[in-house]
Amino acid sequence: MKIIIEPNISDWANILNRPTQSFDELEVLVKEVFSEIKINGDAAIQKYTHRFDKIDISKISVSDSEIMEAIIKVSDSLKEAIKIAKSNIEKFHKSQIIDKKLIETMPGVKCWQESRAIEKIGIYIPGGTAPLFSTVLMIAIPAMIAGCKDIILCTPPDKNGKINPAILYAADLIGVRKIFKIGGIQAIGALTFGTKSVPKVYKIFGPGNQYVTAAKQFAFKSGIAIDLPAGPSELLVIADDSAIPEFVASDLLSQAEHGTDSQVLCVANSIEILAEIIKHLKTQISVLPRKDIARVALKNSKFIFINDLQNTIDFVNVYAPEHLILATESNDFYIENITNAGSVFIGNYTPESAGDYASGTNHTLPTNGFAKSYSGLSLDSFTKKISFQEISKTGMNSIGNAIEIMAESEGLQAHKNAVTLRLNSLNTNSNGKSDKK
Amino acid sequence: MKIIIEPNISDWANILNRPTQSFDELEVLVKEVFSEIKINGDAAIQKYTHRFDKIDISKISVSDSEIMEAIIKVSDSLKEAIKIAKSNIEKFHKSQIIDKKLIETMPGVKCWQESRAIEKIGIYIPGGTAPLFSTVLMIAIPAMIAGCKDIILCTPPDKNGKINPAILYAADLIGVRKIFKIGGIQAIGALTFGTKSVPKVYKIFGPGNQYVTAAKQFAFKSGIAIDLPAGPSELLVIADDSAIPEFVASDLLSQAEHGTDSQVLCVANSIEILAEIIKHLKTQISVLPRKDIARVALKNSKFIFINDLQNTIDFVNVYAPEHLILATESNDFYIENITNAGSVFIGNYTPESAGDYASGTNHTLPTNGFAKSYSGLSLDSFTKKISFQEISKTGMNSIGNAIEIMAESEGLQAHKNAVTLRLNSLNTNSNGKSDKK
Repeated sequence: MKIIIEPNISDWANILNRPTQSFDELEVLVKEVFSEIKINGDAAIQKYTHRFDKIDISKISVSDSEIMEAIIKVSDSLKEAIKIAKSNIEKFHKSQIIDKKLIETMPGVKCWQESRAIEKIGIYIPGGTAPLFSTVLMIAIPAMIAGCKDIILCTPPDKNGKINPAILYAADLIGVRKIFKIGGIQAIGALTFGTKSVPKVYKIFGPGNQYVTAAKQFAFKSGIAIDLPAGPSELLVIADDSAIPEFVASDLLSQAEHGTDSQVLCVANSIEILAEIIKHLKTQISVLPRKDIARVALKNSKFIFINDLQNTIDFVNVYAPEHLILATESNDFYIENITNAGSVFIGNYTPESAGDYASGTNHTLPTNGFAKSYSGLSLDSFTKKISFQEISKTGMNSIGNAIEIMAESEGLQAHKNAVTLRLNSLNTNSNGKSDKK
Repeated sequence: MKIIIEPNISDWANILNRPTQSFDELEVLVKEVFSEIKINGDAAIQKYTHRFDKIDISKISVSDSEIMEAIIKVSDSLKEAIKIAKSNIEKFHKSQIIDKKLIETMPGVKCWQESRAIEKIGIYIPGGTAPLFSTVLMIAIPAMIAGCKDIILCTPPDKNGKINPAILYAADLIGVRKIFKIGGIQAIGALTFGTKSVPKVYKIFGPGNQYVTAAKQFAFKSGIAIDLPAGPSELLVIADDSAIPEFVASDLLSQAEHGTDSQVLCVANSIEILAEIIKHLKTQISVLPRKDIARVALKNSKFIFINDLQNTIDFVNVYAPEHLILATESNDFYIENITNAGSVFIGNYTPESAGDYASGTNHTLPTNGFAKSYSGLSLDSFTKKISFQEISKTGMNSIGNAIEIMAESEGLQAHKNAVTLRLNSLNTNSNGKSDKK
């Protein structure tokens, strides 16, 4: 835990520096697994599931009866909670549908864009202690709204060859039925190349450990799009006297419990508030089941006193946090001036965990400073926009000459010819010889 | 030139297979240049400009007087043409601005997105025989509309240490004033790390040869976003009896003249039309200045007869062309059913070169099958969307329990606590002890 008072602008970059990550050393392993999956398909998947997950899976696809069993196992209260989250996530992501807007840039020159779903997508859901069914919602719901045809979910089997019931329940509720018991590198490899059982996809979504991250980088190099570059999760809170220290402490801890490398920062214009927050942190952490993880993360946490609105937001924009909580009387100022952040939580009653689960926004967000250039997941992430143009004879007459001049200046005579032939035909055929349009 | 009659669906993938590209062997060189730029900055740039561009540049930034000289050199007719293109590109990309849409997913739970410009972007414009001032327009115009603050343009100097006047004119017209005489790997390296002269950027745009492509891959690995994965340019034309073979031939040639690796395809439901197109190709190619390039590209071109609308569009969607021209009576069917394409040109009077220069759509488009998962450049490419959420006390009361249940089920107790503390405060403080909101 570092407490920093009014840092100099020249020190900001240093203070906000993140630990660098490199997965280069995993490349050899990823290459091995990928090339074997490319050649041996399902057999290679089974081999590596045996080696990495310590289990033999005879059938890698999840059956209907397994899904039915899972549905029975999930408690009614969790089902109800998931349905509320689903409804909110659906509402927010449906609001991102954009109407086609046709523009006539010149008379007779019509241009527009249309969205099309990415046809085949893969979802990776990690196994381990936290069964991330919430991530199933965050990826599969916008994929369904976009209209993705093939939605393939891979998640590692546990020691008994099973998948967490809540993951299967969430997938089934949304309508994802192609589910495979595959984890780690071999899951990403299967989605990249396709096997007899697992369809090849065009884009891979989902979090994972360093092996999954390295595999996704390799998938990207092999021509498969990926959702976002990965990094440890982050939260920055801006607080002032209007913040409730107990709440801020709970938010910082909900970040810290994610992993030992979680990034936890708090900026305030009041030393007293910072001290109060730290006091509550110490009380609250002691009862947490994941306190050992949170303690390591808090060791690297930073509490910064900056007594100026503009300096504060400049500092935050340099960091570009994944999650930003605004617990101040100047929230409007910060909303207007934030340029680099993944998702923003406004006011004392908007904890980060609301966005993680149920407010409706997406929880897959840019980490590691990528908020400077990347958005979090949204409906856009599951679609491409195709541009269309339709030029009438009138349009060709008005735009043709400009194209000819530019093409010639770039030394591309055939580009010019394509226009010249059309202009000539319009001038010589003005008697209507050809009525092809 | 291959003529293929009614290919079997099982052969499509084979027919449409693109030559694989790998830039792995360039990695050593890119690594060397990048690590030297990281350490030695401008000095390293000058060293490699000397080595690769065979010229010593004492001042790498372009001066105002150089820009003024360039403006004088550009002909009035080219200036006029560029202004027409600029106006159309502006109109179309301005139409992509999206209004903020606030959604109340539950009573008291407000969610919305806001767009923010990527603050610092780099534009790379290749040198060589074709001075791609049109690409300056296609990248810098949407960057200005988005509101990018730092727009850095790098382009290699010619043998006399100069930059093509049309490139400088186009940049100046749009308002790009930070222009550097740097080419190839060293340009991408400078934009990735920043030097004393060249600012570091968050995203790099622009085409280039294999060295630039390899360098952009490396920039991406170093945490800098890039516009699109690269590949040779492509055109697929769908024609029927309503097409004008002379026009189609001119369009195929305008693709073929780009490079020897350009991809040229034509699908028609009439052998006669295909034969007519090929006849015109042979006539038109003979007078082209770049006929040698075009001839090589045409050698690998494919003319495919498919006598069925649905099969035709399925075939095209498997290929996912960068450019698609529709010269048929069934254009509406194809518009509705195209799912994978970069930009679509509709009707006999809409040549690809219209989109390359002046219709208003962007000419930076996904090649190499990436239209299955990527859009071409649009206003979106220069912005990120931040999500916001604001939950009132009422909102917390309605959504809180669902979050608690989900967080607990994922084993994340601190996430639950952040909500529990707030719910408790609402229930115990209903007498209004705390009016912090």
